[in-house]
Amino acid sequence: MSIKKVLVINGPNINLLGHREPQIYGSLSLSEIEKALRQEAEKLKIEIEFFQSNSEGDIVSKIQSLFGAENTGLIINPAAYTHTSAAIRDAIAAVGVKTIEVHISNIYAREEFRHKSFIAPLCIGQISGLGADGYIFALKKLAVL
Amino acid sequence: MSIKKVLVINGPNINLLGHREPQIYGSLSLSEIEKALRQEAEKLKIEIEFFQSNSEGDIVSKIQSLFGAENTGLIINPAAYTHTSAAIRDAIAAVGVKTIEVHISNIYAREEFRHKSFIAPLCIGQISGLGADGYIFALKKLAVL
Amino acid sequence: MSIKKVLVINGPNINLLGHREPQIYGSLSLSEIEKALRQEAEKLKIEIEFFQSNSEGDIVSKIQSLFGAENTGLIINPAAYTHTSAAIRDAIAAVGVKTIEVHISNIYAREEFRHKSFIAPLCIGQISGLGADGYIFALKKLAVL
Amino acid sequence: MSIKKVLVINGPNINLLGHREPQIYGSLSLSEIEKALRQEAEKLKIEIEFFQSNSEGDIVSKIQSLFGAENTGLIINPAAYTHTSAAIRDAIAAVGVKTIEVHISNIYAREEFRHKSFIAPLCIGQISGLGADGYIFALKKLAVL
Amino acid sequence: MSIKKVLVINGPNINLLGHREPQIYGSLSLSEIEKALRQEAEKLKIEIEFFQSNSEGDIVSKIQSLFGAENTGLIINPAAYTHTSAAIRDAIAAVGVKTIEVHISNIYAREEFRHKSFIAPLCIGQISGLGADGYIFALKKLAVL
Amino acid sequence: MSIKKVLVINGPNINLLGHREPQIYGSLSLSEIEKALRQEAEKLKIEIEFFQSNSEGDIVSKIQSLFGAENTGLIINPAAYTHTSAAIRDAIAAVGVKTIEVHISNIYAREEFRHKSFIAPLCIGQISGLGADGYIFALKKLAVL
Amino acid sequence: MSIKKVLVINGPNINLLGHREPQIYGSLSLSEIEKALRQEAEKLKIEIEFFQSNSEGDIVSKIQSLFGAENTGLIINPAAYTHTSAAIRDAIAAVGVKTIEVHISNIYAREEFRHKSFIAPLCIGQISGLGADGYIFALKKLAVL
Amino acid sequence: MSIKKVLVINGPNINLLGHREPQIYGSLSLSEIEKALRQEAEKLKIEIEFFQSNSEGDIVSKIQSLFGAENTGLIINPAAYTHTSAAIRDAIAAVGVKTIEVHISNIYAREEFRHKSFIAPLCIGQISGLGADGYIFALKKLAVL
Amino acid sequence: MSIKKVLVINGPNINLLGHREPQIYGSLSLSEIEKALRQEAEKLKIEIEFFQSNSEGDIVSKIQSLFGAENTGLIINPAAYTHTSAAIRDAIAAVGVKTIEVHISNIYAREEFRHKSFIAPLCIGQISGLGADGYIFALKKLAVL
Amino acid sequence: MSIKKVLVINGPNINLLGHREPQIYGSLSLSEIEKALRQEAEKLKIEIEFFQSNSEGDIVSKIQSLFGAENTGLIINPAAYTHTSAAIRDAIAAVGVKTIEVHISNIYAREEFRHKSFIAPLCIGQISGLGADGYIFALKKLAVL
Amino acid sequence: MSIKKVLVINGPNINLLGHREPQIYGSLSLSEIEKALRQEAEKLKIEIEFFQSNSEGDIVSKIQSLFGAENTGLIINPAAYTHTSAAIRDAIAAVGVKTIEVHISNIYAREEFRHKSFIAPLCIGQISGLGADGYIFALKKLAVL
Amino acid sequence: MSIKKVLVINGPNINLLGHREPQIYGSLSLSEIEKALRQEAEKLKIEIEFFQSNSEGDIVSKIQSLFGAENTGLIINPAAYTHTSAAIRDAIAAVGVKTIEVHISNIYAREEFRHKSFIAPLCIGQISGLGADGYIFALKKLAVL
Repeated sequence: MSIKKVLVINGPNINLLGHREPQIYGSLSLSEIEKALRQEAEKLKIEIEFFQSNSEGDIVSKIQSLFGAENTGLIINPAAYTHTSAAIRDAIAAVGVKTIEVHISNIYAREEFRHKSFIAPLCIGQISGLGADGYIFALKKLAVL
Repeated sequence: MSIKKVLVINGPNINLLGHREPQIYGSLSLSEIEKALRQEAEKLKIEIEFFQSNSEGDIVSKIQSLFGAENTGLIINPAAYTHTSAAIRDAIAAVGVKTIEVHISNIYAREEFRHKSFIAPLCIGQISGLGADGYIFALKKLAVL
Repeated sequence: MSIKKVLVINGPNINLLGHREPQIYGSLSLSEIEKALRQEAEKLKIEIEFFQSNSEGDIVSKIQSLFGAENTGLIINPAAYTHTSAAIRDAIAAVGVKTIEVHISNIYAREEFRHKSFIAPLCIGQISGLGADGYIFALKKLAVL
Repeated sequence: MSIKKVLVINGPNINLLGHREPQIYGSLSLSEIEKALRQEAEKLKIEIEFFQSNSEGDIVSKIQSLFGAENTGLIINPAAYTHTSAAIRDAIAAVGVKTIEVHISNIYAREEFRHKSFIAPLCIGQISGLGADGYIFALKKLAVL
Repeated sequence: MSIKKVLVINGPNINLLGHREPQIYGSLSLSEIEKALRQEAEKLKIEIEFFQSNSEGDIVSKIQSLFGAENTGLIINPAAYTHTSAAIRDAIAAVGVKTIEVHISNIYAREEFRHKSFIAPLCIGQISGLGADGYIFALKKLAVL
Repeated sequence: MSIKKVLVINGPNINLLGHREPQIYGSLSLSEIEKALRQEAEKLKIEIEFFQSNSEGDIVSKIQSLFGAENTGLIINPAAYTHTSAAIRDAIAAVGVKTIEVHISNIYAREEFRHKSFIAPLCIGQISGLGADGYIFALKKLAVL
Repeated sequence: MSIKKVLVINGPNINLLGHREPQIYGSLSLSEIEKALRQEAEKLKIEIEFFQSNSEGDIVSKIQSLFGAENTGLIINPAAYTHTSAAIRDAIAAVGVKTIEVHISNIYAREEFRHKSFIAPLCIGQISGLGADGYIFALKKLAVL
Repeated sequence: MSIKKVLVINGPNINLLGHREPQIYGSLSLSEIEKALRQEAEKLKIEIEFFQSNSEGDIVSKIQSLFGAENTGLIINPAAYTHTSAAIRDAIAAVGVKTIEVHISNIYAREEFRHKSFIAPLCIGQISGLGADGYIFALKKLAVL
Repeated sequence: MSIKKVLVINGPNINLLGHREPQIYGSLSLSEIEKALRQEAEKLKIEIEFFQSNSEGDIVSKIQSLFGAENTGLIINPAAYTHTSAAIRDAIAAVGVKTIEVHISNIYAREEFRHKSFIAPLCIGQISGLGADGYIFALKKLAVL
Repeated sequence: MSIKKVLVINGPNINLLGHREPQIYGSLSLSEIEKALRQEAEKLKIEIEFFQSNSEGDIVSKIQSLFGAENTGLIINPAAYTHTSAAIRDAIAAVGVKTIEVHISNIYAREEFRHKSFIAPLCIGQISGLGADGYIFALKKLAVL
Repeated sequence: MSIKKVLVINGPNINLLGHREPQIYGSLSLSEIEKALRQEAEKLKIEIEFFQSNSEGDIVSKIQSLFGAENTGLIINPAAYTHTSAAIRDAIAAVGVKTIEVHISNIYAREEFRHKSFIAPLCIGQISGLGADGYIFALKKLAVL
Repeated sequence: MSIKKVLVINGPNINLLGHREPQIYGSLSLSEIEKALRQEAEKLKIEIEFFQSNSEGDIVSKIQSLFGAENTGLIINPAAYTHTSAAIRDAIAAVGVKTIEVHISNIYAREEFRHKSFIAPLCIGQISGLGADGYIFALKKLAVL
C-alpha cells in the first residue's frame, strides 16, 4: 500500500513561525515551509493538504476526517499539545493512519516538560530539531513506505 | 428532589464509536447507544438530551448551560479529557449538578495515564468497563436519587 | 457462553453494612442487599450464592472453588483488600472467571490509598459510588454477557 | 515604554463568577469586575479590553492578536488552564507581552494540582487570593511599569 | 462517657515476645505484659480482655465484636499489619471505638516501611518505643477520657 | 472588623535590599519601601509597624506579639524562610491574624525549591513578583477587609 | 550446624499448580513437586515436611512452629504474599531459621509489583524462574550449609 | 543507670498553649502542664527543669548543656522544628542523652508534612496525641529506665 | 562554515543489524546502510567515515579524535549507550562538533528506559523510527548547515 | 532442542573472587568455581567455555559471538553491570540465547541500587545468594531444558 | 584581586567537636582546629577570624557583615544547616564573597538527607571527609585565587 | 600504616583537559597537572603513578592492580563514570585501598545528574571545584594518613 496523499497538521502558535522567537524556531514562515513541501510533493507525485489550528478539538476533528481514507499519511507537529493532549493521541489511534511527528526545534534541549510526548508511541517515528527540513524528510519517508 | 431531565455528554473521538478499535470499545455506534438511552428514559419518564464534541471548551460551555437547572442530572464520558482537563472538573463543580462518570472500556486495564481522573472525585460515582450498559446503569441510578 | 450462576463475594467489614458509617455506606444492611439481589437473580433466571468474610485467605479459597465451573460469574466487593491483596488478584487470574468489582461508596472521593485497585485490571469493569445499586447493575451486566 | 492599553483575559468558568461557589470565588459577577476595572482604567488613562472564553484554542488565538502591539499589557486569569495548558504558555512566550497572572481564590490553599502553574514563570508576577482586587492591583502595576 | 471496659489486641508474632529478638522487643513475655495490664486495670476498676492472632481476618472480626458496645476502649498493637492492612483500618472506622495504637519498639528508628501506619490517623494517639509500658500508658489514658 | 493596625515583617537578607542582586530584587532599599508604606498607611489612616530579622525564632516571637490584638493585620515577606519554616507557619496559625504573604521577586520563575510555601495556605493570599508594589497592594487589601 | 530437617511452605494459589495458567507456572501439580522433593530429601537423608495455605496468618503461625528448632531449614514460596506481607517477614526474623525463597515463574519478567520482595532481604538467597527445579536446588543448598 | 534529673524542652509556639487553637492543642496552658509535671517529678524524686524557646539555635544550645551530664533524661516537644531541624537531631546525637519526643496533638491525623520527624529516630520513643498526659507518661517512662 | 567530512558512529549491537530482531530493526545490514550512505555522500561531495564499537570507552575516544577538526559533522546512533552514558555526552560537549542523533527504531514506542537520552540535549536534533533512512536524512541535513 | 554447549560469563571484579570481601562473596576463587563447573559439565556431557572481563563492550561482543549458535546456553553473572548496562540487555535480546542470571551474594540484602536488574526480564530465571552453587544449579537447569 | 582576609564560620554543634562522636568527627577540638588555621594563615599572611553559632539567624547576620568587604574569603562548615537552610544560601548570594564549603566527615557516606546541600552550588567548591585538614586546604586554595 | 605510593586515575575526557571547555575545566592540561603532582610527591617522598582511560573496564582493571598492595593510596577523578559506574564502585570496595575522589569543576553547580556519586560513599572524602589544586590537596591528605 503506497502513500498517495499526505495531510500536514500544525498545532498551536505555529502560525507565528518566522516572526516568533527566531533564535528557537528559525526565520522561515509557515507559508514558506508549505511552499517547499508542495514542491517536494509534486516531485513525489503525492497530493498534499495543509491544516493549522490553535484548537485541540479542531485538530482532533481534522485527524478524524482521515477515517477510512486509503493510501494516506499524516505529518503532524502538535506543538504544545504534544505534551498535554491525550485526545490527539486517541484520534490517531482511532483512524490508524501512518503518522510521523515533526518538531522544528530540538525539544530535548528545552524545558523538561517538552521531553515527553503523548503522540510519539503511536507514530512510525519522530524528527526533532532539524528545522523545516524535518517536514521534507518526513514526506520523503512516507513516500517510500 | 427527583431527577426529571438528564444531559448525556460524550467527549472526543466518541463520535467514531462502533467504527474505531472495536476490540476496545465494542461495535455499537454512538447513535445506537443514544437510541437505547432514549427508550430507557421514556420508561423512566425522564427527558434526555445528547451532546458530543471534540472540543474541551465546548464541553465546558455545555456543562455551564445546566447552571441553575433543577431536577437535572449529568452523565458524562469525558474520554481522553478525563485525564487532562481541570476545566471540565471546574465546570461540574460550578454548576453543582449530580453527575455520574461513565467509561465504555475498563480504564483500569489500560495505560497508566488513564487510571487517574480529574472528574471522578466530584461525581456520585463512576462506571468503567461495562460497555454501553454503563450509560443505562447511570441513567437508572440518577432516576432513583 | 451465557452466565447461569453468580457468586457474590463481600470482603472485610461489609457485614456491618447499614450500621457502620451510614453517611459513607448508606443505610441498607448486607442481608437487605442480598435479598434484592436474589429477587433480581430470580427474574434473570440466574442461580446466586453469597459469601462474606473478613479473612483474605478464606476469600482466596472461595474464589478457587470456582475453578473449572462453567457459565459462572463473580461479583466482588473486596472492600479494604482491594488496595492491599495481590493474593485475591492471583486467585481471580487462576480461575479465569468473569468478574465485576463493586464499591458502595465512591472510592475516588476518599483517601488516596483507596484510589488504586489490585483487582480492577483483571475485571470486566468496576462500579464505584452507586450504593447497593452497584451490585444490581453488576448482576444485570453479567446476565447479558 | 509605558503601557497604554491592557487586555484582560479570563479563562474557563469565570463567566459564572458571582453565581458559582461564592464561598470560594466571592459574590461579584464578571461584569461587575469588568465595570470596576473600566473605571480604574479611565483614571489611569489606559484603554482596556475584555475577553472570556472556555476554549483553550480561542485564548491562544486572542493572545496571538497582541503580536507586534506596542505599549500593551496583559492580565490573565487562566483558571483551570493554569495547570494544564502548555499552549497558552507558548502563546505568551511568542508575543512577548508583559503579563500578570491573577487568581481570585488562593490557589495555594486549595487542591495540590492547583499549586503548579504553567504560566507564572513567564509573568511579571502573580496575585492569588485577593479576590476581585487582584485585577485592580494588576492593572495598577502595569500602569507604573 | 467514661471507659469501663478495654479490649487489648496484639497482632502477628507478638505471641513470641520475650523470646524473639530481645534487643528490639525487650525480654517481657506477652503473658507478663497481660498480667501487668490486669493489675493496672483492677486499680482503675476497668474490665479488661486480651486477644492475640496472627490472622488479619480474625483481628478484623474481633474488632467488629465491639460494635455497639458502650464505654469501651481499644488498645491495639497491629504489629506488621500496621503497614499493610487497610482492612483493620476500616474495622476501626466501622465500630467507632476510641482506640490507641501501641508499638513496643520505636517504629521510627527501624526500616522505612515501618514508618507509615494505616491505623494511626483513626486513633486518639499512638505510643511507640516505650516497651511494655506503652500498653500501661494507653490504658491510663483511656481511663481518663 | 476593620483593620486599624498593620505589622510588616521582613525575613532574612531583606535588610540588604537595594544593594543585593538588583537584577532580581530591584534598587529600592528597605527603608525606602518602609517610607512608601508609611505614606500609604497615613492615607488609609492605618497605624503601621516594621520588623526585620534574620532569625527564624525572633520572627516567630514577633508574630506571637500579635496574639489577642484586634483590628490588626500582618504583611509578611518571609524570604528564604518561606520554603523551610514550619515554625512561622504555626505562629501565624496560632495568632490567627489576617495575613498576606509578599515576595518582591517572582518566586515561581526562580529555583525549584522556591516554588513551595509553608505559609501561603494560611494566608488570605499571596503576591509574588510585583516588586515593592506588592507591599502596597497588600496594605490596601487589608484596609478593605 | 548441619540441616537435618526442612519445612517447605507454599503460599496462596499454589494448590492450583498444574491446573492454573500453565503457560506461566508449568504443568506439574503441587503433589508431583512434593513427591520429587521427598525423593531428593531421602537421598540427602533430610526429613521433609510440606505446608500450603491461602491464609497469611496460618503461614505466620506455621513459621512460628519452627521457633527453637535446631538443624532445621525453611524453603518458602510466599506467592502473592511475597509482595504484600510484612507479617511473614517478621515471622522469619523472629524464628531466625535459615531460609531460601523460591518462585516457579521468573517474577522479574512479570508485573512491576512482583519485582519487590518483603522476604528476600532476610533469606540466604532467592531462586526465580527455574520451575519446580528451584525447590530441588534450594533443598540441595540447605543440605550443604 | 537510673534517671535523677529531667530536662523538658518545648519548641516554638508552645508558649501559647491553652490560648492557641484549643480544638487541636487542648485548653491547658504551658505553666499548668509544667505544674503537673513538677508534682509528678516530686513523687518520682526526680529533679525537673523547664525550657521553652522559639529559636532553633537556642534549643540546640540548651541540649548541648546536657553534654556529660549523668543520670539525666530529656523530654522534647520540638513542635514545628520536628519536621525541619537537622540541627536539633545532631545535638541530641552529640550529647547522647536518653530522649522521648512528645506531641500534644496526633501529628499523624494532621498535614502530610507533620508525618515525618527528624528527631524520632534518635529517641527512645514518641508519644503523639495524648494531650498533656503525653508529658507525664514520658516522665514516668524515664523514671523507670 | 559548511560540512566537508562526516563521521558516522554506531554503538553496541548495531553490527548485528539485519540479523537481529528484524521485526524491530528491519532487514538491512550495517554494511548495506554504510553503502547507501557512501553513495549519498558522494553525491553531496562529502567525505565519510564509519565506526562501530560495542565499547563505551572506544566510542568516547573516537569522538575525541574529532577534536580540533574543522568542517566536520557527526552522526551517532549510540544504541543502548543513549540511555546510560554520561561519558559519551561529555565527549560530544568536549569536541563541540555538530551532531545529529539517529535511532533506527522508534525509541518512544519501546521500553520506558529508552525514552530518555543523555545525548540529545547536545545535538542539533534527533531522528527516531525512520529506519535506515534516518541516517540519510541526517547526512542531508548536515550538508546544508 | 537440548543444550550441548554453555558459555559462562562473569563480569567486572569477579576475577578477584575468593580474595575480595569474603564475608560477602565467600572464599572460593573464580578458577575453583570454574573447575567445579567443568566437572559438573563433564557429567552432563555439556561443552563449557568461560569468559571474564571488566569491560562492558567486551562482554557485549562475547555475547554476540553466540549469534546463530545452536543448542547453546548462557550463564551470566553481570556483577555491577547488572544494574547499569542496557547494552548487555540488548545483546542478550539480539542473540536470543537461553540465559540464566546468577549472583553469588544475595543482591536483595544489599544496597538499594542492586535490587534492579536490566537483564533478569530477558532470562529464564535468576539465582541469587546461593554462592558458587548458584552456577552449578544454573548449569543443571540448562541441561534439562 | 587576591584574598587578604578570611572568615571561618562553623555551624551548630561544631563547638562540641573532639568530644562528640569521635568515631565520626575525629578527636580534634574546635579550638585546636582554629589554632592550626591561625598558624597557616600567618604563613600565608592572611588575616583570619573565627565565628561559631548554633543559630541560623546569627550565621546569616555574620555573613552579611562581609557585605562590601574586599579581598575577603569565606570558609563555611554549615553543619546541619547545610541541608535545611535556604537563608544561609541567600546570604552568601547576597554578599557575593568567594566561599568554600567544608565538612569534617564524608557526608556522602552518611544518611540520605545529608547528601544534598543548599549551599554548594554557590561555592567555588566543597571538601568533604578530610577531617580538620579540609579547613587548611580551603584556606590554601583561597590564598591562591 | 603510612602511604608510600599513590596511583592517580583520571576517567573519560580528562585527556582533553586544558583544550576542552576551559570556562568549566580551566586551562591546565593533564600533563601539567601530572607534573605538579610529581613535584609535590617528591617533596612528600611518595612514589606516584598516573593512569588515564576512556574505558570503564580498563579503569576497573587498573584499580584491581592495587589488590594486595600495601602502603598505597588512590586518587580518582572518575569524570562521567562518577554518576553511572557501579563497576568502579565495586572495584574500590574489592581492593579496599584508601581513596579520595577529586573533581576539577564544582559538580554541585552543574546538571542535576552530576550531583550523585556511586563512588563517594566508599571514599575517605571528596574534593570538588578546587581545580587542579584538588589533586594536590588529596595527595597531601593521603600523605598524613
